[in-house]
Amino acid sequence: MEKISSSPVRGTRDILPEEMRVRDELEHTIAGIYRAHGFSRIETPALENIDLLLGSDGGDNLKMLFTVLKRGKKFKPTAESTPHDLCDQGLRYDLTLPLSRFYANNADHLEAPFKAIQIGNVFRAERPQKGRFRSFKQCDIDIIGDPNVTAEIELINTTATALMAAGFSDFTIKVNDRRLLTQFIIQAGFKAEDVGSVCISLDKVDKIGTDGIKAELVEKGYDAGMIDRFVDAVADVNLDNVGDKVDAPEAVADLKRVVDTITRLAQGRYNIEFDFNLIRGMGYYTGEVFEVRWGDVGYSIAGGGRYDNMIGKYMKQSVPAVGFSIGFERIVGLLMERGTHKQGGRKRVALFHQKNADMVDVIEKADSLRAEGYDVNLIVEKKKVGKQINHCEEQGYAGFMVYGRDTDIRFFDGE
Amino acid sequence: MEKISSSPVRGTRDILPEEMRVRDELEHTIAGIYRAHGFSRIETPALENIDLLLGSDGGDNLKMLFTVLKRGKKFKPTAESTPHDLCDQGLRYDLTLPLSRFYANNADHLEAPFKAIQIGNVFRAERPQKGRFRSFKQCDIDIIGDPNVTAEIELINTTATALMAAGFSDFTIKVNDRRLLTQFIIQAGFKAEDVGSVCISLDKVDKIGTDGIKAELVEKGYDAGMIDRFVDAVADVNLDNVGDKVDAPEAVADLKRVVDTITRLAQGRYNIEFDFNLIRGMGYYTGEVFEVRWGDVGYSIAGGGRYDNMIGKYMKQSVPAVGFSIGFERIVGLLMERGTHKQGGRKRVALFHQKNADMVDVIEKADSLRAEGYDVNLIVEKKKVGKQINHCEEQGYAGFMVYGRDTDIRFFDGE
Repeated sequence: MEKISSSPVRGTRDILPEEMRVRDELEHTIAGIYRAHGFSRIETPALENIDLLLGSDGGDNLKMLFTVLKRGKKFKPTAESTPHDLCDQGLRYDLTLPLSRFYANNADHLEAPFKAIQIGNVFRAERPQKGRFRSFKQCDIDIIGDPNVTAEIELINTTATALMAAGFSDFTIKVNDRRLLTQFIIQAGFKAEDVGSVCISLDKVDKIGTDGIKAELVEKGYDAGMIDRFVDAVADVNLDNVGDKVDAPEAVADLKRVVDTITRLAQGRYNIEFDFNLIRGMGYYTGEVFEVRWGDVGYSIAGGGRYDNMIGKYMKQSVPAVGFSIGFERIVGLLMERGTHKQGGRKRVALFHQKNADMVDVIEKADSLRAEGYDVNLIVEKKKVGKQINHCEEQGYAGFMVYGRDTDIRFFDGE
Repeated sequence: MEKISSSPVRGTRDILPEEMRVRDELEHTIAGIYRAHGFSRIETPALENIDLLLGSDGGDNLKMLFTVLKRGKKFKPTAESTPHDLCDQGLRYDLTLPLSRFYANNADHLEAPFKAIQIGNVFRAERPQKGRFRSFKQCDIDIIGDPNVTAEIELINTTATALMAAGFSDFTIKVNDRRLLTQFIIQAGFKAEDVGSVCISLDKVDKIGTDGIKAELVEKGYDAGMIDRFVDAVADVNLDNVGDKVDAPEAVADLKRVVDTITRLAQGRYNIEFDFNLIRGMGYYTGEVFEVRWGDVGYSIAGGGRYDNMIGKYMKQSVPAVGFSIGFERIVGLLMERGTHKQGGRKRVALFHQKNADMVDVIEKADSLRAEGYDVNLIVEKKKVGKQINHCEEQGYAGFMVYGRDTDIRFFDGE
């Protein structure tokens, strides 16, 4: 019989024990900080109805949907069938859309305001490339039902605290406000309804440069003059002069309050700064947007913003909302590179025993070591136990004991 | 614009904060026990290749696959297209098949024997019914590469320890062995290659009774006389006489060792017994099978067995394997019913503040309460703070503090 391939699905990967230990510890650390700050964990299904997904503000993510075939009699293919005809569900591409649906579905049973923790996998059929996978974990907090800028302050403070607990410091939180950007974009001649689309293009400056953005906007049908006017107007914008250039006093006051409050809370351990070049590549943001940069890695390790108009799509009334997402996979990657995770957690030891040993005695010995704080792995002794012991040392065990021969753990580092 | 439905996908559900607290605590407890017993967590993608899924020993689960549409140019529907023609991936229906693939794919990087923890969601398009969902969490441990019955003893001891840590006692572990069943089935006149299929039918005794099983086996094309011979032969089988009825001395010795060892380890806190009526409804088991029953609930809360022939389908050599799965959703349901979870975890308090308060002071106050062991939720005070306070009490908060008015937490229970 032909062997079936044992590779994981294209663009996905298996996660081995060493990385899983880092992931579990990180998730536990972050979730603990989130809960201490009054957030509550929820979970939604990985599958969502296809109409919800396709009707959402997902931008390019909608091109990368994994869609699930209709079942039974509903499956009626023809040569003209589109994917949408044949599918009634799809895998979620983020956690913000499911949260909005969840809130609309369950608002009566939730605290007000509602502070959500979501940690779960999302799916995007991206072109496979280094470090980008088709299934990856997101780690979000959101505050729903609070229009005050104190919600932004809480999210930023909580996220910064979580990042510090995960072992990061000296990161920089960048903030901007879509209300300011919107005014600049409209003053340059764009229509109000185009702001989301223009922001999605502006966000690509790191990838395609100013010329690339201009080309993309011209291709979208905008006049090049409008783009030049925008670029001129935003040159040298800062928090002190932006109030003279656009009429958005609330946005300016909110930004100043956020920067001032967080600077004082940070006590020099991390930074926060206004950055007019921070756009965020989603169309749905309505107020402040934020992003965290660390070291010289060319990507953000966290990002979010206010999206006051999304939940209203699924409910009778409009509901304010703001969220902040930690880049879980990126943090895991950085922790693995730094190797700092190797210090954490309980030490592992191997307890070798003969296959005919009285397992009551062996397990009682193991339990006594567990009570001392060790994770204990029972292993049946083979003829060459020396090879087995070497294997344990290679695998990062702290030590071993051969049942019936040793009375104490023998540590590999000789302690 | 028409509102989009906010319901989750048919047959799935949203998980609210109260249940999530129970789930998180349970997962953390179980995973901690598993790790202390030398097991290591791994993760595989929710998506697997369709050929792997359809080529597996999944029985009825294969009828319940969620399949994912081919993308781009590979999507070429015709009126004759089958689901298989149009799909190249599907969602996993269990964690055992992905583990077998994982082991084949990564064996060179894994400890030998390899002891895996898997906690993750699986997907089955079951007919929606009370308590059964199309997406649910499984919680498995497996030992791969160890042919000794000490592996069974370890799995049973570890699972029993995890169940006790989760708050259960007085449960009964039932054990049987497919090697005995196989002999009885062959002696009754069935062919060796039919044993898996016969076992799948025999397992349905609780649902359809002995007559139902007979009808099903006759429908599968077997002679009713063979079935009667089997039923007669297995009447009154026990561990003392089974050796006289079939020639499987190793299986009998292994069962006796398991029952004796676990009985001594249990110290009366739980029970283990041989039960010849325990079948398990999967075709792939090759040795001992086990299941845990608790109280008078009509279902098992854990189950597993040895499957020595599965991994060989994906590798050059055959590899022994044995696994034990805790029914995570069933345990959560029982814990929610018993309400014992309400005692655990950190207490939550609400800290009300005015929207223009200095958030540095407010957050410093919150942090001091967090350091005392409380989860603290900041809430902006509205005109009717009394209503907000009542809402917190309803939501299970331990107490509250109004910033600027109270200097200490006011507890709802008057302490």
